[in-house]
Amino acid sequence: MTDSPSTLSPEHLEDLRLRTRNFIRSTVIPAEPHPGEALDAATRIRLQMAAKEAGIFAPHVSTRYGGQGLPIEHWSVIFQEAGYSLIGPSALNCMAPDEGNMHMLALIGTEEQKQRYLVPLANGDTRSCFGMTEPHPGAGSDPAALLTTATKVDGGWSITGHKRFTSGALLADFCIVMTRTEAVGGSPAGATMLLVDLANPGVRVGKLIHTMDRAIDGGHPHVHFENCVVPDSAVLGEVGKGFTYAQVRLGPARLTHCMRWLGLARRSLDIALDRIERREIFGSPMKNLGLAQELIAQCVIDIETSDAIITKTALLLATDAKAGSALSSVAKVYVSEAVCRVIDRCVQLCGGDGVSDDLPLASYLNEVRPFRIYDGSNETHKWAISRRASARRAAAVAAGEPYLADVGDEF
Amino acid sequence: MTDSPSTLSPEHLEDLRLRTRNFIRSTVIPAEPHPGEALDAATRIRLQMAAKEAGIFAPHVSTRYGGQGLPIEHWSVIFQEAGYSLIGPSALNCMAPDEGNMHMLALIGTEEQKQRYLVPLANGDTRSCFGMTEPHPGAGSDPAALLTTATKVDGGWSITGHKRFTSGALLADFCIVMTRTEAVGGSPAGATMLLVDLANPGVRVGKLIHTMDRAIDGGHPHVHFENCVVPDSAVLGEVGKGFTYAQVRLGPARLTHCMRWLGLARRSLDIALDRIERREIFGSPMKNLGLAQELIAQCVIDIETSDAIITKTALLLATDAKAGSALSSVAKVYVSEAVCRVIDRCVQLCGGDGVSDDLPLASYLNEVRPFRIYDGSNETHKWAISRRASARRAAAVAAGEPYLADVGDEF
Amino acid sequence: MTDSPSTLSPEHLEDLRLRTRNFIRSTVIPAEPHPGEALDAATRIRLQMAAKEAGIFAPHVSTRYGGQGLPIEHWSVIFQEAGYSLIGPSALNCMAPDEGNMHMLALIGTEEQKQRYLVPLANGDTRSCFGMTEPHPGAGSDPAALLTTATKVDGGWSITGHKRFTSGALLADFCIVMTRTEAVGGSPAGATMLLVDLANPGVRVGKLIHTMDRAIDGGHPHVHFENCVVPDSAVLGEVGKGFTYAQVRLGPARLTHCMRWLGLARRSLDIALDRIERREIFGSPMKNLGLAQELIAQCVIDIETSDAIITKTALLLATDAKAGSALSSVAKVYVSEAVCRVIDRCVQLCGGDGVSDDLPLASYLNEVRPFRIYDGSNETHKWAISRRASARRAAAVAAGEPYLADVGDEF
Amino acid sequence: MTDSPSTLSPEHLEDLRLRTRNFIRSTVIPAEPHPGEALDAATRIRLQMAAKEAGIFAPHVSTRYGGQGLPIEHWSVIFQEAGYSLIGPSALNCMAPDEGNMHMLALIGTEEQKQRYLVPLANGDTRSCFGMTEPHPGAGSDPAALLTTATKVDGGWSITGHKRFTSGALLADFCIVMTRTEAVGGSPAGATMLLVDLANPGVRVGKLIHTMDRAIDGGHPHVHFENCVVPDSAVLGEVGKGFTYAQVRLGPARLTHCMRWLGLARRSLDIALDRIERREIFGSPMKNLGLAQELIAQCVIDIETSDAIITKTALLLATDAKAGSALSSVAKVYVSEAVCRVIDRCVQLCGGDGVSDDLPLASYLNEVRPFRIYDGSNETHKWAISRRASARRAAAVAAGEPYLADVGDEF
Repeated sequence: MTDSPSTLSPEHLEDLRLRTRNFIRSTVIPAEPHPGEALDAATRIRLQMAAKEAGIFAPHVSTRYGGQGLPIEHWSVIFQEAGYSLIGPSALNCMAPDEGNMHMLALIGTEEQKQRYLVPLANGDTRSCFGMTEPHPGAGSDPAALLTTATKVDGGWSITGHKRFTSGALLADFCIVMTRTEAVGGSPAGATMLLVDLANPGVRVGKLIHTMDRAIDGGHPHVHFENCVVPDSAVLGEVGKGFTYAQVRLGPARLTHCMRWLGLARRSLDIALDRIERREIFGSPMKNLGLAQELIAQCVIDIETSDAIITKTALLLATDAKAGSALSSVAKVYVSEAVCRVIDRCVQLCGGDGVSDDLPLASYLNEVRPFRIYDGSNETHKWAISRRASARRAAAVAAGEPYLADVGDEF
Repeated sequence: MTDSPSTLSPEHLEDLRLRTRNFIRSTVIPAEPHPGEALDAATRIRLQMAAKEAGIFAPHVSTRYGGQGLPIEHWSVIFQEAGYSLIGPSALNCMAPDEGNMHMLALIGTEEQKQRYLVPLANGDTRSCFGMTEPHPGAGSDPAALLTTATKVDGGWSITGHKRFTSGALLADFCIVMTRTEAVGGSPAGATMLLVDLANPGVRVGKLIHTMDRAIDGGHPHVHFENCVVPDSAVLGEVGKGFTYAQVRLGPARLTHCMRWLGLARRSLDIALDRIERREIFGSPMKNLGLAQELIAQCVIDIETSDAIITKTALLLATDAKAGSALSSVAKVYVSEAVCRVIDRCVQLCGGDGVSDDLPLASYLNEVRPFRIYDGSNETHKWAISRRASARRAAAVAAGEPYLADVGDEF
Repeated sequence: MTDSPSTLSPEHLEDLRLRTRNFIRSTVIPAEPHPGEALDAATRIRLQMAAKEAGIFAPHVSTRYGGQGLPIEHWSVIFQEAGYSLIGPSALNCMAPDEGNMHMLALIGTEEQKQRYLVPLANGDTRSCFGMTEPHPGAGSDPAALLTTATKVDGGWSITGHKRFTSGALLADFCIVMTRTEAVGGSPAGATMLLVDLANPGVRVGKLIHTMDRAIDGGHPHVHFENCVVPDSAVLGEVGKGFTYAQVRLGPARLTHCMRWLGLARRSLDIALDRIERREIFGSPMKNLGLAQELIAQCVIDIETSDAIITKTALLLATDAKAGSALSSVAKVYVSEAVCRVIDRCVQLCGGDGVSDDLPLASYLNEVRPFRIYDGSNETHKWAISRRASARRAAAVAAGEPYLADVGDEF
Repeated sequence: MTDSPSTLSPEHLEDLRLRTRNFIRSTVIPAEPHPGEALDAATRIRLQMAAKEAGIFAPHVSTRYGGQGLPIEHWSVIFQEAGYSLIGPSALNCMAPDEGNMHMLALIGTEEQKQRYLVPLANGDTRSCFGMTEPHPGAGSDPAALLTTATKVDGGWSITGHKRFTSGALLADFCIVMTRTEAVGGSPAGATMLLVDLANPGVRVGKLIHTMDRAIDGGHPHVHFENCVVPDSAVLGEVGKGFTYAQVRLGPARLTHCMRWLGLARRSLDIALDRIERREIFGSPMKNLGLAQELIAQCVIDIETSDAIITKTALLLATDAKAGSALSSVAKVYVSEAVCRVIDRCVQLCGGDGVSDDLPLASYLNEVRPFRIYDGSNETHKWAISRRASARRAAAVAAGEPYLADVGDEF
């Protein structure tokens, strides 16, 4: 999805960062809806046009498709600036799930698919969703449990199944659907990704799942597929390789979540710092109270370490996608918890106002909490992290590393 | 507020507990509103009548006023059962702030005040609020910063000031207002509590503060007093002793919060246990997965230790009010954080459903979070806890205990 | 092991507590060895004689055998006072493993066994150990993996096996050994406890395992049994019931560990409080610095909640041994971690002196850390806690409690 | 201290890392002393010679002085490999305090000072120490409290004062001493660093402070200066600028501690992984138990985030020394606590062996714990972190950033 990263200088990146930062402060923050309410369509369109004029729109998208052409290792500084406002990523068209879908279309889409789906999506003219999660006992934290099927029919595929938590589906124009497919032709049995227009008569967007996060446009609805027929050209990538592609999408996608939420953590800390700067309590400015300083310092530590692990992971994704995807599990668990801790402490520093909607902090708490569950629950990631660590070490010992847990045999 | 505790046997208490438990399950839970919505008045009245018939109404109130006459050391088991439902305390008329106001009226009210204010309040016929918190830089975590004044006028007092976070005020019939008073007659300058009917023309209930907790009837509004005149008989207790009384109220009041919220933590754990009992993931029942067991075990530990520190504090409040009030700071900090941890883990165990309102857990998170700030922020309590520990130890050393931090002088 | 608890008044207990406290401060603390060194035998004997004279010796032992006759629900206040010094429990003869062995001998020993083993042990004339843990893959956190066998021989039993971490064995006169036994006569196959004199020629005390804790008299050696023959009268309790008895021993034994270590946590906090009382830093007394107050407050919270859960568990052990034993898992996990946290924070408050042996805190860290592993690792206890919680809830639902995790079926 | 970093390719660095890694495993680990014991001089010399032959000696030192010439941003990968063994840094001559002293001598020493002090130090022929910390109320966490004085005398300076925790002094040839100096000539009053040979008759190395860490060669003694006269050429850098230089030294020095200790955390995790690979418990390999996986995953997260924040800080130190020094506070607090957590969990995973010296983990716990206090206690750093955050945000608001904590004025 990137182009000509070799031409990108640190000065260029810093300039883009400052212009993004300024745009968020001067244009986006004044347009923020009241805590807990969603961005309306008109404001979204207005902000996206302003972002285009400011030359900061779609930072992660190739310049060929109207973006800023940043390679993944440079996304973090920009996405954090965008995430400083809950609606910043929408204004820049780098919000989930569209951003991840653009990334995947650019990587594995055919030229025709790019023209039809990526171009308008990158331009903000359409919206999309990703159909992965299913009701129990289908695909959830365990993707292999996939129940939605696509059956080969003449000239295409027929999809039947039930997805839920299909974030953004209510306003989306198309969906990338994970389906289970039998071996067909030379293709192996496995999972296959299909591009489905939501106007397809075989699709029905069902009940919206009301969740504690409210900011995502298009909610988290159920989506039903019943004999939904799509042409062969709807196959994204190759038949039977869906799980591999899902990893391609999910590694970067969960890392960009980290970036955006970290921006919101920075916003929260600024709110808290502003408050303790001017408040006095027990005859002392709050900022001089050690119990407040403890909270502030822990916030800074969480933010800096989150920033550092995101940077490390992005660099690795750029050079070794598999290792980067593995490390993205670490980043996801750590940052999702760190961001919750930061906002929680800032609520505490703001006292009664912190839990009221006179400040946005309580709504931020509700926005970020689900990320510890979405994109693979943290427990699932920890399980994967542990298994990988055990396997890597066992392989090293098998390859000659000294075994270190001998306890001797004298007694 | 208690009577004849000596007649209360363990069997009597266990019987009351089981009847309360059964009432909550059979009658209250089926009447619960949707997550995030408040209990309507008609249901509340119906539940209170049912609770009276079941002989479990107002467990903390003297039998003389229609309650069950439990002494404070027995409240916990009953209040936890009530708190198993967010609306259970309302059904039993032991919710905040009424419960704390009943406690204080019973302890320091005149007989006339008891007849006029306590009797209907205890019976569920009226509601009340407590006017303590003020906008910055007034009384908040530092009660001594009190700005609302009461000036002596002929036959009474004239109150002027601005309260906020006056929980329950929107539906309340009267308010116990903390005011600052000059020395008058033989009374010292200090704080004085006044009973004010909200129908008084000098009172205006202002804007509601929208907070993340939604379950409290009557919200958290601003209340304004402007030349609000009340008669001398409106003085609760003695003039100038308001801060002392506030401690009388606040120690038990923050402990009963702990009891009720701990009940909700038990509910949350039952929800999570029910879910992992029937769900499978990665081919194994969730209840057998170690990463889930870690979360469950930590919940049990939090619940049992919370229960234990509440019991210890209640016993101490019953025998040594000052020491009990000091220990209630420890209980408040610990239980408010433990309860948040428990519900947070249960959200995690329930995955996507945990953050949706198909289960009530996300709303519970929002209900309990403010308790870490209300009733004195945890940071303020920790500051007090530390100062008391230092003072007590310094006094012990001054009284002859060996000083233990000498590091010798050889070098 | 208790007698006439009905005659024990709160005043009696408080008097005993104060006399114990005074004895520890006036007599025991001045006799403490240098950090990291063990108590020598002569000092131990002198202190035990002084404790007898002071009328505080063996608080948990029946008066019939020279103790103070306290029931288990009163041990905590006394054991905490004893534990205020690392050598206090030895001075009072209530240290592990002797204390647990006394408890078990009193409960299930024959009168002959009591005369031969309990009387001198309770009097401080002999020492004992408990042979449970074995080298991998034998009995460790999983007692059922027991490998040491006892085979029926004419008139007795022949023991063969290998124990390790046999705490105290180096100085012990006898050992209570857990063995695996076949079904014999009417007795079932299972585990059997045998009383073995260490002078028995079939016993060899092997290599000492050097551990980070140094205070226990007699270390943690390996012990080898090879055709070690003991008479039928060496069976403690009934053949085949060893696992049941082990639970009888382990529940209280792990709780008394909690009591003693909590005393050491109190000592640590006093050391830290003394230091910050007199130190200044950045121009302010340390005790007024918020970052120090945070640490102190957390220590107080840990200590008070530990005290509370110990009290709750001891009361339950006195009335319902099985439920008490289950709750002792909660107490063990919580207190073992809380005590480590407390001492760790006190080290931090004492800076460079905290990690030097000019103060005893660094040695305390080393003494308490293993308790998170000994007596069943905390992970094993958490596993048991979780399984019990799941089983209890599943039984409740099966018995009619409403199932609480339904998420509806509209979509 | 670095030279020609522009010529350093990633391949060169990776080659050096692998050779260092191999050297540690093949040569250093087999030479490790028993847990808790120090490296003897002969072995140290032998290992240093081997390291020179292997071409990996003194990685941080300019090639001009016999080192590998790595710039600071490349130290971390090598120092972590060295720190995989407690004696690795000594073998490579990159241990504290010599490494920090080399760094400072290279940066601010005169050519004569470099020849006299740096060349033999870099070569491993001499040892050094740094005289900063003083007994209370002198310089400790608050360096400004410096009490040791240097008075101008004819042709030099006369030092009088008392240092403690002078790490390495027992074996050192010279000491860099922080002294307080009056304004002299054109130099301001302030602190001045002086190079003092320990053979100087005005120096006396006093009592050794016994601390829980044992691995440092030369211990942590008291050092006394009494009318200790040094020539003018002993001034390191300029008179009166000692505090500035101290920051130059301390930022990188605390970061290299992080690097080395992180290497030890990796070693600990490998030990634990090896153990759970081969152990079974409750009929299952330990590595498959969720409660073990939780511990492992948390270790990996701690290690990866520590590595990331070290990398970020080193890069910043290379480009902006002041900002890098500020961020080094964050790295120091985070890594010192993360490393303790990692080793603590590994102890837990190794059960009884974890607390015995059959494995080195218990000794590692004792080695790393003081780092939370040394080099500025974590509490002091958190205080600084918080103050910087408040100051930076206040400056931003003063420069026009929107103030974010307004809570409206309707009520």
